[in-house]
Amino acid sequence: MSDLSRSQMEAIFEATKACRALNESSEKKSASLKGKTVINLFFENSTRTRTSFEIAGKRLSADVINISKGGSSVSKGETLLDTAKNLQAMNPDVIVLRHPSAGAAYHLTQILEAHVINAGDGAHEHPTQGLLDLMTVKDRKGQLEGLQVGIVGDIAHSRVARSNLIGFQKFGAEVTLIGPKSLVPESFKDLGAKLSYDFRKSIPQLDVIMMLRIQTERLKTSPFPSLREYARFFGLNRSLMEKAKPDVLILHPGPVNRGVELDPEVADGPYSVILDQVKNGVAVRMALLEALVRS
Amino acid sequence: MSDLSRSQMEAIFEATKACRALNESSEKKSASLKGKTVINLFFENSTRTRTSFEIAGKRLSADVINISKGGSSVSKGETLLDTAKNLQAMNPDVIVLRHPSAGAAYHLTQILEAHVINAGDGAHEHPTQGLLDLMTVKDRKGQLEGLQVGIVGDIAHSRVARSNLIGFQKFGAEVTLIGPKSLVPESFKDLGAKLSYDFRKSIPQLDVIMMLRIQTERLKTSPFPSLREYARFFGLNRSLMEKAKPDVLILHPGPVNRGVELDPEVADGPYSVILDQVKNGVAVRMALLEALVRS
Amino acid sequence: MSDLSRSQMEAIFEATKACRALNESSEKKSASLKGKTVINLFFENSTRTRTSFEIAGKRLSADVINISKGGSSVSKGETLLDTAKNLQAMNPDVIVLRHPSAGAAYHLTQILEAHVINAGDGAHEHPTQGLLDLMTVKDRKGQLEGLQVGIVGDIAHSRVARSNLIGFQKFGAEVTLIGPKSLVPESFKDLGAKLSYDFRKSIPQLDVIMMLRIQTERLKTSPFPSLREYARFFGLNRSLMEKAKPDVLILHPGPVNRGVELDPEVADGPYSVILDQVKNGVAVRMALLEALVRS
Repeated sequence: MSDLSRSQMEAIFEATKACRALNESSEKKSASLKGKTVINLFFENSTRTRTSFEIAGKRLSADVINISKGGSSVSKGETLLDTAKNLQAMNPDVIVLRHPSAGAAYHLTQILEAHVINAGDGAHEHPTQGLLDLMTVKDRKGQLEGLQVGIVGDIAHSRVARSNLIGFQKFGAEVTLIGPKSLVPESFKDLGAKLSYDFRKSIPQLDVIMMLRIQTERLKTSPFPSLREYARFFGLNRSLMEKAKPDVLILHPGPVNRGVELDPEVADGPYSVILDQVKNGVAVRMALLEALVRS
Repeated sequence: MSDLSRSQMEAIFEATKACRALNESSEKKSASLKGKTVINLFFENSTRTRTSFEIAGKRLSADVINISKGGSSVSKGETLLDTAKNLQAMNPDVIVLRHPSAGAAYHLTQILEAHVINAGDGAHEHPTQGLLDLMTVKDRKGQLEGLQVGIVGDIAHSRVARSNLIGFQKFGAEVTLIGPKSLVPESFKDLGAKLSYDFRKSIPQLDVIMMLRIQTERLKTSPFPSLREYARFFGLNRSLMEKAKPDVLILHPGPVNRGVELDPEVADGPYSVILDQVKNGVAVRMALLEALVRS
Repeated sequence: MSDLSRSQMEAIFEATKACRALNESSEKKSASLKGKTVINLFFENSTRTRTSFEIAGKRLSADVINISKGGSSVSKGETLLDTAKNLQAMNPDVIVLRHPSAGAAYHLTQILEAHVINAGDGAHEHPTQGLLDLMTVKDRKGQLEGLQVGIVGDIAHSRVARSNLIGFQKFGAEVTLIGPKSLVPESFKDLGAKLSYDFRKSIPQLDVIMMLRIQTERLKTSPFPSLREYARFFGLNRSLMEKAKPDVLILHPGPVNRGVELDPEVADGPYSVILDQVKNGVAVRMALLEALVRS
């Protein structure tokens, strides 16, 4: 997201609308990537993101190849480099990379001719998630400028939080990062964010609340006493919702831990735009693929 | 199978013949599902059924997406619901669901806009298997009415047995469920089946014998002393075949445990229509996909 | 490779050039396999070879189905036979088989109507690798006749070595098999190969050096004291390269164990044609698929 200008993102949003319309039509097929090869190279499992990219590529008539790699015994950096060079020799047009190391996608752009889309690199960025989140909010709110956005949860380990922080700020929204002190590093102030350790106190000001997934699988040591304790202070439930603005939007990148960061009645309630996010996710990825291949 | 009327099934059989002809032609490709998205969502492994659906969808020009999910730590029902809602937001036209819980596919039909095909739900039903079995027998015998059909094996845990029982009865065939008492529940009498615990005694009356796979992986406790003991009384071997009608048909949903429920010489013998079943399986799934998308 | 005549291979090389040109064009798509079904049936993992065949099939507009099977509890031969017969009933045009048993692919050609491509059978052959290696050398050297080819490493367990030995000899090149005595069986002399246990002594004569991957996963007991010991005598490093011809070509079937059989500076150096091999791999598989389907 740090590479994209506001006007580039606006162009992507326009293209996304056209792709969304295609996805809601009867024949969801465009020939724009016919004869192009898209490789989904996933070093971390993500059925959801991989499926979204796979559908996006196929609806545009690309040849889509899925490669998933578990943890390897050899040094990851070396494996990634060799894997990527080998794939390049097969003449792909786009490589979609999900990798546990920050900077992995950028690294590939330096050595490959193929276009590279970052589908998540460690705790660094997840730009297509950021784009789909911005698009979802813009659609509902008309504009992003001046909005108060709260991102709640494990900020420290979240690439979604980083990509959204950067993206919302580029459009003139103000972002508050909310969570227990152990998960909201002071250093995020340098990126222009406001920090809050008290969700209940911050919620009345927010136009947009983005709840993050507690990814127990990513946490090496537990940063809070228990999930129940976490949910009590940083989960979003009906009682807390009573303090929120009447037109607040609730986002979540999924999959939701129901009863932890989000109560089921909130996840499925009228303020939730979680399924809009998923819908926009396929469309924004189609728009990106088309833009890259055309460039 | 309980939802389908006899005339609906007959229409599927007619359409299946056309699909089978396509599959035996030189260019096995129809444009009837162009621009449609078919998701194979398999919560249980089944290379065979998944491959059959995948080939069916691709030959009709659909965009086919495979998703396989292992056992998850969270409550299965919740996971299925959230997974399905998320997939729905990606605008699929058909979701093919294999799930360990009875009623899972029906449950999805209540909440999704996409068409749902049940590719096996727990011990409840496996309707595409039932349809391909009926089709296979009808093809060979001309009609189903009045036939004596024996289904042999682990009736209690078999969705194949249930779907065939329902299907054959709708066409006026008579079904005998055969196996050790521990695997043939009395309650099946209420569904109109005859029960038999003596295969040797029942075999001379049968026009069709459907041998079920002993799925040791599904059995929680052993319902019989040993596989050898089971095979001795309920396996189909050459000696038992001598008591069968000269024009009997042998079916098996596969994969066969050779030497357990079926001796190799019977599985590969002249009465076996096991490979016809596989061939009709692809065609019947194509016919269903076309019917759903047209509806 | 033992089945193919020199003129058949030359025809494949010509067709490969056309496919390579397609792969380097803007719209990498041919309709030559439209309506054909290609099944990649892999009983051993090989992301690289599977991806190469998958891309090849899709660029030719085939319907491509991937099936990967782990170790099964039942006797492998029986499983393979039943799996293959079942797949045949689904009317595939080509089955690409990777299997741990020597002769597996040949076995299938005897029972199936579909064309079968051997994508590696145990320690026996890996003919598409052989073809892409020959093609790569022919491209660079102009012709194969009279070349001195060294194949270095675990000859005993290498299907790549066998396929290349047979292939290079058919074109009049001379092949020296190089490695520790424990990995270079005397019996290869009967196939016309020269044997050497001293890489340093042999290297100055070689026009082509093919380094094999040390596949620790295939070795049941260790045939050499340590990887470091192996690398010292049979790894290719800069110091050894100084003794090589100035126009020597370095090949490796990948993935490279950097620092074991090949030093990084050699793998990435000017003599290395490793990425040409990968590029030719996709093209040679396209040429084969087209030739089989046309036949």
